[in-house]
Amino acid sequence: MTNTALSGQKEALQSLRWSGEQLDLLDQRLLPEEIVYLPLQTPVEVWEAIRHLKVRGAPAIGIAAAYGVYLGVRDFAADGGVAALLQEVERQCSYLATSRPTAVNLFWALDRMQAHAQTLADAGADAGAIIESLLDEAIRIQAADEETNRLIGEHALTLFEDGFGVLTHCNAGGLATAKYGTALAPFYLALEKGVNLKVYADETRPVLQGARLTAFELQQAGVDVTLICDNMAGAVMAKGWVQAVIVGTDRVAANGDVANKIGTYSVAVLAKAHGIPFYVACPMSTIDLNTPTGADIPIEERHEDEITQGFGKRTAPQGVKVFNPAFDVTPNEYVTAIITEKGIVRAPYTDNLRKLFE
Amino acid sequence: MTNTALSGQKEALQSLRWSGEQLDLLDQRLLPEEIVYLPLQTPVEVWEAIRHLKVRGAPAIGIAAAYGVYLGVRDFAADGGVAALLQEVERQCSYLATSRPTAVNLFWALDRMQAHAQTLADAGADAGAIIESLLDEAIRIQAADEETNRLIGEHALTLFEDGFGVLTHCNAGGLATAKYGTALAPFYLALEKGVNLKVYADETRPVLQGARLTAFELQQAGVDVTLICDNMAGAVMAKGWVQAVIVGTDRVAANGDVANKIGTYSVAVLAKAHGIPFYVACPMSTIDLNTPTGADIPIEERHEDEITQGFGKRTAPQGVKVFNPAFDVTPNEYVTAIITEKGIVRAPYTDNLRKLFE
Repeated sequence: MTNTALSGQKEALQSLRWSGEQLDLLDQRLLPEEIVYLPLQTPVEVWEAIRHLKVRGAPAIGIAAAYGVYLGVRDFAADGGVAALLQEVERQCSYLATSRPTAVNLFWALDRMQAHAQTLADAGADAGAIIESLLDEAIRIQAADEETNRLIGEHALTLFEDGFGVLTHCNAGGLATAKYGTALAPFYLALEKGVNLKVYADETRPVLQGARLTAFELQQAGVDVTLICDNMAGAVMAKGWVQAVIVGTDRVAANGDVANKIGTYSVAVLAKAHGIPFYVACPMSTIDLNTPTGADIPIEERHEDEITQGFGKRTAPQGVKVFNPAFDVTPNEYVTAIITEKGIVRAPYTDNLRKLFE
Repeated sequence: MTNTALSGQKEALQSLRWSGEQLDLLDQRLLPEEIVYLPLQTPVEVWEAIRHLKVRGAPAIGIAAAYGVYLGVRDFAADGGVAALLQEVERQCSYLATSRPTAVNLFWALDRMQAHAQTLADAGADAGAIIESLLDEAIRIQAADEETNRLIGEHALTLFEDGFGVLTHCNAGGLATAKYGTALAPFYLALEKGVNLKVYADETRPVLQGARLTAFELQQAGVDVTLICDNMAGAVMAKGWVQAVIVGTDRVAANGDVANKIGTYSVAVLAKAHGIPFYVACPMSTIDLNTPTGADIPIEERHEDEITQGFGKRTAPQGVKVFNPAFDVTPNEYVTAIITEKGIVRAPYTDNLRKLFE
């Protein structure tokens, strides 16, 4: 595999991009030390990239898998027949689905690719046309994600004024999506539009997504970003340096409670105490009206090693008790607004989130 | 140098202890991986232990230096005369004072040792008696620190009920003092008295004193301690697991504003938002009536490497901007009470702190 090192450029990194011949995928395991795009040419390479966390972020994983389906059938003999092609598409989808068994976006993208092939076949398309169209569908999935995020960013940016300091937690950025990310989208758009924002990125213990990913991707793009430890958020707010907080989310409940990376709740409480608005950015697909409240969202607890030896070196005593929840829930009263591709939603959330889907 | 490894015992660690022949000093650089007491027999060894951070914490440094003075003169020929002995005491004090040029307690302890020798000489004591008495004075300095901390602990423990969860930040523990520490003193006394407390220790980025020292010394002593990342404090409070917060302090201003390790302010705001009392434990010597408010306390900013590669491994991009204040100031309105060896002080602090010194 040849690698492409692009270190030092001032241009937004992309988690993945179709080159015309192959899927160039940024190896996120190497960040922030090295910027390496892996040229993926087979479904096996895509499967391994997903499985081994070279690509992360639900949207980015789904997009990679969609291209993986195309890579798996592009050499299918066009005269093999449509029925055989559909079987092969199904085989590739089943295989790619095993790469990250809990990734909802992964299954969604694979289902969409398979349904697309079936629809074309039902309409009488031949195998060659279906294969070509599967590439178009993967490109459409990627483009739709980029458009969703751009719209989120446009809406979010209406809430920020030139000169604002904005604090974010964890990484809801371009690296997790096709482009722009969700919470980080307004920062990229501000750069495009010449709006000056000063971003404070919490490093986000234990896994340091803020330091390794958010600070990195914003710095690469030329956004003014300052890295802080999580426990400095209050001090930075007290200094008057922060005019808004924006974060992503893993799930929004029907009442507007928000599950996100551990530490988000502390940031929300600090923001409220300082009179700073707290915004949540997410695509509509993250809002789950079937989850009544945050109390209904299961919170994964992760291995203690992330805290006791997360840097390859033991930093806590052997055998110490550890509490390591991956997420926390921010109750809706701390959420100033939820920003989606369809617009900005404010309290009362139970009514206004439902209206968003009507 | 022979080392004494004591790993695995359930007994409070001591930062240092006089063996009768030598100063056994816990090498804190090796914590939490190894428990090694260094047998110090000369002022040069004490000087190096202080300089190279084998001993840390203002009280512990002062005590080590006091023993260092005795070690420097114990072999002084008793028939050398009192004047020559006083010169030697001064020479040793001047030398030991160069080990950590900014440590106020260090100078205080050395001044006290020198003044003690002078007082005895003025009273007509001979050189042999002065030398013996210098050892007694070092032991008294250590005992007085232990007694101060025990009293702080006794007062603090009156604020906690059996079954309380108590959260602490950074390390204001026995390792920084002769014994007990300040904020951690009530935990040791609760253990002695059979009061059940459940301690949550913030790991305290960037230097991880909470993980490396607090969790460690409490675990060694048999206290029920759970290590969390700083950003989990809010989530733990929201769960109802915390009934009180207690922290140490580097300086208390005349109005009750409190400077302490970065992150303390965030914890105080979170405590207030959850209706949890926020206590500050410190000896009287930490209260500075000559500092009107927290705004008059200079806040040291430290090197970015502590955040970007604090674990020997780079965890943030090269060249990223970093804000790394060592301390923050918690305004008095967040402080439920200040606990000293002379008792518990509550608002209004400007009046009540002044009364404490009358």
